[in-house]
Amino acid sequence: MTASRVPALFTDLYELTMLQAYRAEGMTGPAVFDVFARTLPKRNFLLACGLEQVLDYLESFAVSGQDIDYLRSLGRFRPDFLEYLRALRFTGTVYAMAEGTPAFAHEPLLTVEAPMPEAQFVETAVLNLLHYPTLVASKGVRVTQAAQGRAVVDFGARRAHGVDAAIACARALHIVGYHGTSNVEAGRRYGIPVAGTVAHSYVQAHASEAESFARFVAEFPGTTLLVDTYDTLDGVRQVIDLARRLGDRFQVSAVRLDSGDLAALARAARALLDEAGMSQVRIMASGGLDEHAIAALLADGAPIDGFGVGTTVDVAADRPYLDAAYKLVAYDGRDCGKLSPGKVSLPGPKQVYRIMEGNSAIGDVIARRDEAVMGEPLLHCVMRKGCRLPSASPGLSASRAHLAAGLDRLPARLQSLSDAAQPYPVAVSQALLAAQSRFQQLHSEDT
Amino acid sequence: MTASRVPALFTDLYELTMLQAYRAEGMTGPAVFDVFARTLPKRNFLLACGLEQVLDYLESFAVSGQDIDYLRSLGRFRPDFLEYLRALRFTGTVYAMAEGTPAFAHEPLLTVEAPMPEAQFVETAVLNLLHYPTLVASKGVRVTQAAQGRAVVDFGARRAHGVDAAIACARALHIVGYHGTSNVEAGRRYGIPVAGTVAHSYVQAHASEAESFARFVAEFPGTTLLVDTYDTLDGVRQVIDLARRLGDRFQVSAVRLDSGDLAALARAARALLDEAGMSQVRIMASGGLDEHAIAALLADGAPIDGFGVGTTVDVAADRPYLDAAYKLVAYDGRDCGKLSPGKVSLPGPKQVYRIMEGNSAIGDVIARRDEAVMGEPLLHCVMRKGCRLPSASPGLSASRAHLAAGLDRLPARLQSLSDAAQPYPVAVSQALLAAQSRFQQLHSEDT
Repeated sequence: MTASRVPALFTDLYELTMLQAYRAEGMTGPAVFDVFARTLPKRNFLLACGLEQVLDYLESFAVSGQDIDYLRSLGRFRPDFLEYLRALRFTGTVYAMAEGTPAFAHEPLLTVEAPMPEAQFVETAVLNLLHYPTLVASKGVRVTQAAQGRAVVDFGARRAHGVDAAIACARALHIVGYHGTSNVEAGRRYGIPVAGTVAHSYVQAHASEAESFARFVAEFPGTTLLVDTYDTLDGVRQVIDLARRLGDRFQVSAVRLDSGDLAALARAARALLDEAGMSQVRIMASGGLDEHAIAALLADGAPIDGFGVGTTVDVAADRPYLDAAYKLVAYDGRDCGKLSPGKVSLPGPKQVYRIMEGNSAIGDVIARRDEAVMGEPLLHCVMRKGCRLPSASPGLSASRAHLAAGLDRLPARLQSLSDAAQPYPVAVSQALLAAQSRFQQLHSEDT
Repeated sequence: MTASRVPALFTDLYELTMLQAYRAEGMTGPAVFDVFARTLPKRNFLLACGLEQVLDYLESFAVSGQDIDYLRSLGRFRPDFLEYLRALRFTGTVYAMAEGTPAFAHEPLLTVEAPMPEAQFVETAVLNLLHYPTLVASKGVRVTQAAQGRAVVDFGARRAHGVDAAIACARALHIVGYHGTSNVEAGRRYGIPVAGTVAHSYVQAHASEAESFARFVAEFPGTTLLVDTYDTLDGVRQVIDLARRLGDRFQVSAVRLDSGDLAALARAARALLDEAGMSQVRIMASGGLDEHAIAALLADGAPIDGFGVGTTVDVAADRPYLDAAYKLVAYDGRDCGKLSPGKVSLPGPKQVYRIMEGNSAIGDVIARRDEAVMGEPLLHCVMRKGCRLPSASPGLSASRAHLAAGLDRLPARLQSLSDAAQPYPVAVSQALLAAQSRFQQLHSEDT
């Protein structure tokens, strides 16, 4: 299944001005850039996601003749530089955490090593393509945890920030354990189960709710009926009436509540259905739900069998961005870093090790890549010389399994919806601390 | 310039199940759907935006053979229905507010009138395409107002939710008065001015900051230099040294501050530059800015000449979604509505009138479309029988002018960054109230 092609000019203009300068200076040596989040507000962990989209982009990266014409029209680039861009491809090496790996602040999710111009050009797109799936996977896993094994379906296509966000979100949420998505294009593109039956407008378009239900089950007998268009419990009674009229032909599998006091309505609906001998009809809930609302409903004992979750997760409403950055950590074999307040970066190529005790992760160590640390390395080579390695694209099922296994190994306190009183310990290795201190000293001597 | 094509299957599955049922019932009569926001949290007004993308989508809407094959593979649709989808086009009429029109809760931003199956199919995409540009235009105008005429540039491409969000955002922000964008693809596609010079990584890749500055101005003499990679005021001193060395050849136009206490640093940088006789060198600021940060900097007297604004606006961080809906208000000449708690919709086709007193808007009236109300109608026919009217696409310059004029006419109290103590009055006309009450009565008799 092909993804949408990312336009080559989807980049910040400064990437191109820097490229022209690098080229003029002959600075085309190998550069190393890390992608990481500086902080983790409102989350106890992140889940790395979006690697597949990054690799698709890097493999197909090419500047077209039409792109060159536009850049020429800006009047700020040299003709020989524009010709150079025409031939530019991504030939670098990429290390990354597998999709679905739990990750923490300052840990590289992905490292790009490539000749400086290539590594610099792709900054904007790589960050964009990795940031959003990681953002929504890290939000969405809270919903599947709150739902305690009940089915969750992504309903967020209409208010996600654009079409490709909605599609990328459906994919990320399937990795974190969502049962499916309402988004047909995401289903087509990634083989995700699609779900959906009927909206309020269908009920409204008919002269009465009862008529709309009867008509819809004539077409889709095993459907879920939406019962809250006018009055939720009246709606449930209409479903019960329909069951009486249809007898053995009644196959409706569920009713959906989408507004009002969902806990009270679910209890009342369950009582009506059970009383009518319809215990096989399940109750679905939707309507502005997030992980906290779901946890509260279940804590309240609401008899809800599944959830449709929309906007709050597709836009990660409580924290709609990560403080994610793409930072130069080495150029031409020399460590690089940044000392700006609040934006310090760790120098040099790195590896992240997860330290295990039995089957439990007890902490991570961010280390130099060439350093020997006991623990499980989380960054793997996924692309070499611009070509994706077969192991880099395990498929959605394998990513789901990888995520589930990784979550199982995390301390239970991180799996709470509130901030863990004791955060997961992430250490910086002695060798990396020494490198950082050398870098700071070097710079302070410089100025 | 062409926009990305929205896949026809970018729709919620329930749109398709409803379509098959409508078709089986012969319910292909004319339907009217309104797009509106139910509430306006953290905003005193919205700005309608995204119409161009909606019209592009509706004009090119078509289900491909590959799409049909996928739908067939789901095993839930009838073969004759799938053949019917293959021939389906959008043949309806669309009314909308011009891009850049100030709007309020419950006012239709757009109305679709089409045979039910067409109007229903396009719900998900129409809402998605209108919601996000309206969201970011309504956020971004707060930034241009806070900047009080200083240049603002969109820097948000890397953390917008996907590639098409970033491009749509750059367009919306240009309409609300941003000078330009760092996003080259948005510049190419929509003719928006592009801006950008150099990043921290360029400074870091060189052996020293001084060397990086000297090299960069050799390539781009009139550039903006980023001075905060290691120590901001040291960075400014390097720029001053460079000016001394270059003499008349020094043409650097600005320095950019991206971290730390921006007000204090701007004052100190201004003092250093002025002392060195370099009053022509301007000061730009960036780094996590939003409208409140910009207002605070300017209230503090910070001598800043322009702003780069990123993530906070591209994701509308303080309110990353609108409570926007696409609701059926009439079918086959009959009013429709919804009575769910908190989700009541106004029945029937509508017009919104802006009531003027001289050159000031004093309130709006939401009325029945066929009702005569004194005031300026805000909804215009933009597409008829599936064809866009020429007046529907006035171009970005005209939309910028329309927006500026519309803002000028709004009461000054709405242009504050805080919630207006007295919100803008939006009335519902007598005829519309009567229709709503008829609808409610009709339904309560029904059940």
